[in-house]
Amino acid sequence: MYTLPDLEVLRDFNAIAILTSGGDSPGMNPAIRGVVRAALNNGIQVYGVQRGYSGLLAGDLRVMTSASVRNIVQRGGTILKSDRCEAFKQKEVRQQAIKVLEQNGIDALVVIGGDGSLTGAHSLAEESDIAVIGLPGTIDNDIFGTEDTIGFDTAVNTALDAIDKIRDTASSHERYFLVEVMGRNSGFLATHVGIAAGAEKVVVPEYEVQIEQLGQQLCDNRRSGKGSSGIIVVAEGQTPGLTYRLAQQLKQQGEEPRVCILGHIQRGGRPSGHDRVLASSLGAMAVRYLQAGYSDIMVGVANGAILDVPLDSVIRYRKGLDPKLFELALLLHK
Amino acid sequence: MYTLPDLEVLRDFNAIAILTSGGDSPGMNPAIRGVVRAALNNGIQVYGVQRGYSGLLAGDLRVMTSASVRNIVQRGGTILKSDRCEAFKQKEVRQQAIKVLEQNGIDALVVIGGDGSLTGAHSLAEESDIAVIGLPGTIDNDIFGTEDTIGFDTAVNTALDAIDKIRDTASSHERYFLVEVMGRNSGFLATHVGIAAGAEKVVVPEYEVQIEQLGQQLCDNRRSGKGSSGIIVVAEGQTPGLTYRLAQQLKQQGEEPRVCILGHIQRGGRPSGHDRVLASSLGAMAVRYLQAGYSDIMVGVANGAILDVPLDSVIRYRKGLDPKLFELALLLHK
Amino acid sequence: MYTLPDLEVLRDFNAIAILTSGGDSPGMNPAIRGVVRAALNNGIQVYGVQRGYSGLLAGDLRVMTSASVRNIVQRGGTILKSDRCEAFKQKEVRQQAIKVLEQNGIDALVVIGGDGSLTGAHSLAEESDIAVIGLPGTIDNDIFGTEDTIGFDTAVNTALDAIDKIRDTASSHERYFLVEVMGRNSGFLATHVGIAAGAEKVVVPEYEVQIEQLGQQLCDNRRSGKGSSGIIVVAEGQTPGLTYRLAQQLKQQGEEPRVCILGHIQRGGRPSGHDRVLASSLGAMAVRYLQAGYSDIMVGVANGAILDVPLDSVIRYRKGLDPKLFELALLLHK
Amino acid sequence: MYTLPDLEVLRDFNAIAILTSGGDSPGMNPAIRGVVRAALNNGIQVYGVQRGYSGLLAGDLRVMTSASVRNIVQRGGTILKSDRCEAFKQKEVRQQAIKVLEQNGIDALVVIGGDGSLTGAHSLAEESDIAVIGLPGTIDNDIFGTEDTIGFDTAVNTALDAIDKIRDTASSHERYFLVEVMGRNSGFLATHVGIAAGAEKVVVPEYEVQIEQLGQQLCDNRRSGKGSSGIIVVAEGQTPGLTYRLAQQLKQQGEEPRVCILGHIQRGGRPSGHDRVLASSLGAMAVRYLQAGYSDIMVGVANGAILDVPLDSVIRYRKGLDPKLFELALLLHK
Repeated sequence: MYTLPDLEVLRDFNAIAILTSGGDSPGMNPAIRGVVRAALNNGIQVYGVQRGYSGLLAGDLRVMTSASVRNIVQRGGTILKSDRCEAFKQKEVRQQAIKVLEQNGIDALVVIGGDGSLTGAHSLAEESDIAVIGLPGTIDNDIFGTEDTIGFDTAVNTALDAIDKIRDTASSHERYFLVEVMGRNSGFLATHVGIAAGAEKVVVPEYEVQIEQLGQQLCDNRRSGKGSSGIIVVAEGQTPGLTYRLAQQLKQQGEEPRVCILGHIQRGGRPSGHDRVLASSLGAMAVRYLQAGYSDIMVGVANGAILDVPLDSVIRYRKGLDPKLFELALLLHK
Repeated sequence: MYTLPDLEVLRDFNAIAILTSGGDSPGMNPAIRGVVRAALNNGIQVYGVQRGYSGLLAGDLRVMTSASVRNIVQRGGTILKSDRCEAFKQKEVRQQAIKVLEQNGIDALVVIGGDGSLTGAHSLAEESDIAVIGLPGTIDNDIFGTEDTIGFDTAVNTALDAIDKIRDTASSHERYFLVEVMGRNSGFLATHVGIAAGAEKVVVPEYEVQIEQLGQQLCDNRRSGKGSSGIIVVAEGQTPGLTYRLAQQLKQQGEEPRVCILGHIQRGGRPSGHDRVLASSLGAMAVRYLQAGYSDIMVGVANGAILDVPLDSVIRYRKGLDPKLFELALLLHK
Repeated sequence: MYTLPDLEVLRDFNAIAILTSGGDSPGMNPAIRGVVRAALNNGIQVYGVQRGYSGLLAGDLRVMTSASVRNIVQRGGTILKSDRCEAFKQKEVRQQAIKVLEQNGIDALVVIGGDGSLTGAHSLAEESDIAVIGLPGTIDNDIFGTEDTIGFDTAVNTALDAIDKIRDTASSHERYFLVEVMGRNSGFLATHVGIAAGAEKVVVPEYEVQIEQLGQQLCDNRRSGKGSSGIIVVAEGQTPGLTYRLAQQLKQQGEEPRVCILGHIQRGGRPSGHDRVLASSLGAMAVRYLQAGYSDIMVGVANGAILDVPLDSVIRYRKGLDPKLFELALLLHK
Repeated sequence: MYTLPDLEVLRDFNAIAILTSGGDSPGMNPAIRGVVRAALNNGIQVYGVQRGYSGLLAGDLRVMTSASVRNIVQRGGTILKSDRCEAFKQKEVRQQAIKVLEQNGIDALVVIGGDGSLTGAHSLAEESDIAVIGLPGTIDNDIFGTEDTIGFDTAVNTALDAIDKIRDTASSHERYFLVEVMGRNSGFLATHVGIAAGAEKVVVPEYEVQIEQLGQQLCDNRRSGKGSSGIIVVAEGQTPGLTYRLAQQLKQQGEEPRVCILGHIQRGGRPSGHDRVLASSLGAMAVRYLQAGYSDIMVGVANGAILDVPLDSVIRYRKGLDPKLFELALLLHK
């Protein structure tokens, strides 16, 4: 797994609060466990915030003990529950959250979530004296500054489990299947799933799909005996219904593809080994970064090592899809 | 598993043809293996027909050896491929199929499939001297005359795997999820999945859904603290989009349910142990029923025993959902 | 699934206690849920006994609410915990247990477990006025009077998951693997697993294994090109080490088989759909049988229907392996 | 996943041979597919060698087409089969292998395997003009010069699947379980599995186990209510039976731990998404490194990037267990 940094303990804390926010992702629980166990083993109290920023505003906190996180490392979802909190975009609302933290003697906060959640975390860090650390928790792996996110590996495996089943039917009926995976802005998940599934084609938001070419290719495959069935992985994209539209267009070219939308099963399930180790490491390291005096950062992964990235950069830049990875998918498909 | 009947060998055969037809279901491969191995061990030749009735019409047969079915017991789909063949409803077309069989010296045929496929099998039995046996292969378990079908048990487990994942997100976000499983005319799959998933509610074609009542119940659960999340299993029914319409109606009552359409993953995947033993037994017994002089029957399951049912009855009657099972789902949900 | 009996409500109860005893099996949780929900929906109180008969003796009971069994239908093991209690074979000890039940106003007891646990249940029924119902909970499916037991189907699937992995290595290295499954007195599990795994051979306590013949057969397969790898499923039998001894003997005949002992993973894991529906049905029916005035019975399965069997018979007779099933395994292996 | 290097095409090849050697690992098939598809797409012929070095000596080669590797990306084991070949340690024997390659016009060889297999590859590179590339294929992840190996991630997940099942029984019976995973010289697999399983303790060859301390700790946990069940992950180590000896010693201290040896299931199974992408990338990159003029190297992973390591170093040095990772396991366990 990833190399852990050496950090000196420079600062002491009274209590750390932890919350999960936005769409849940598998591995949030081992991350929570990592924060709780590391903090308690360093003599720091931990509060679990229920339902993300909404629960924080409502003062919905509970003291976490070592037993609170017993037997959760293998569970999907988040024991702290999660929420999307639109109101948190307003400064007055965040001031209310800061008050809640201060009134409970909490001097540090760990936020696990995606882009939107980390934006809230950055604002809290700027607008208060509370030390704030973000951890990247999303199945999309679309967060700038980190190569890996909690939940991505599990989502790839979940999508593959489904596709390995679909391939049985595709091959039995000599049909192509369009399989839609999550990914509104980013084709990262689709590209990984596509390579791992041995897909004929991957459709991602970063590159325009040439539908005539694709139809022609499928048609050629069928004629030349190269193959009369297969999987095309499609990232959902910005406008709902993309995959059905693609199927419609392929029908006009003589194919009869079937559509399968994987949907919410991609968010759930027991986290994979990779995600459990990643999440446990990031959770424990979040506490260590706090103790080393850091704040307003995300703890992420680059070049195979765990490291800090300013939250400011995380939320300002957009992560691009590695073109070499996408080319690999193309290279291997036939 | 099911009790196997005692049958005397009364008749000899030259060659048996086997085909899979209609929607594929997990367990078709061990059924094929059962027929092939049982026939060869009894000195009868076996032909595998490619792509169902379409392949039969095209004379697309290959000789099956013991090795042809090696290492397939655990594979989803069907190695013989499958097809829906509209033309087979015409008598002239079926006469063509009978010629193909006769020209190849084939005096028996085993057909694995659902209602439509067994209808074709019955006609072939009536219109020729070829002995014909049907085996029930469908994930819907909606075939009259048999309590169990090849693929049903696997499909239940596949749906549960998905729902166990969805429950993580449902619980983390305190939301209800409407999960659509297959079943156009029959709520058998939905009812079993609902009981096994501990669903709050099961919606099936056999009973009208009281949408106001359901909305009220969810709302009451939430208020009374009985639960703010859960799963509602919906059989797809006759008109596409039922589950989305239900979600829309629940939204008007203040809920924000999410929709998940399981789709084609339900047909695929490695067959479960139950389906492998069932399919192996039915396959081997199909050969034994042929040898005992039977024809124009389906080999199915009733009262825990494998037995014969006239194909005539199989295709004439409709299997009803056991109301006591449906009541059990209701009894346990809260 | 199995047909549910019609039973009239004839008797009223104050409180039902429920316990799980002996080796745990997957499906005990949905059985507990079935008892609890059915009882509460009929206005009967339920106590959960911790750690089987040991906990009963210690008076370790807790009131079960509908929420106590929320979200457990998919969990392996037993939330009530289990134990083997040697002391319970003594009448004085059982008298102590009866006192505990009476002092808590409990007039009925449901026991989920195997042979030993049901023996205790029968004695309690004979020695007190408490109505006692047993439910068959064991992965071995070796209980007289029922064709199916809670946990059997899941154990078959767990063993198959392992064997499907082992087959990859067996085939890559052209080796035979001896895979040991549970089953001290009974080859039921081994036979089902063997059929479903497409095993070359099944070794069970009911039939003596001809080791020279087996070695010869493997050797012949290899020479004739029939196959140079495969799986042999072995029931553990009475004396530990059987599978290693078989491997040793095959080595002397020139084979280099590998050994794999599946062990405790067979007891655990999320229950299969079949086991969840079976356990839910048996749990709900246990309450219904109590209300219909039954006691000193096990609720089991015969001829595809749920029905009652006197506990007296259950513990007196031994269930035999269906020879036709065993022959089927032999018939299909090559 | 890992960053792919930029490499210029400098050299042309007539034909590449590929073989898998030593213990099989999940992901060998997508690696084979990566080599085959990348070579063919660059106009280079590919030969698949059967059964590792043994098959090479016997001249057991077959021409690989794009179709040869169709639908294998998801399969465990290796379609080329594998073998351990003691004779290959002798120079004369290797000269024979070189002749076979030359006679078939093969000017490059890709070897997928562990330490022993790569030692053979290094010798071939030194003793001939054939360009040789090694790929790290082992579930142990114990190869010097690479942070990751093909099959490691899948083995971690397979072990976790088993442990998640065992935990059900551990918790139901309030017992500790000693679970033995593979790893003769290296605790890498055990440490990852231990962190991901939330194990109470990890026993690895790199650190001496303090058995009295461990017994005391379990005993303390039980007394203090900290927990009466749990998982201890043990790397198998050099001398068979370690885990049983540990269990024996713990028994003397009053515990009744159960033992579970995971064994060969760890080598098999469908490769995980991570392993499929890693193997596909390494396979395609092996061809690219050949074209860039490299030989006598392994293509591995360091600092999150795919890169070359001299085979000379790979086989000379031993990879150490990251002490910080091991400390993380200790930090989180309670």
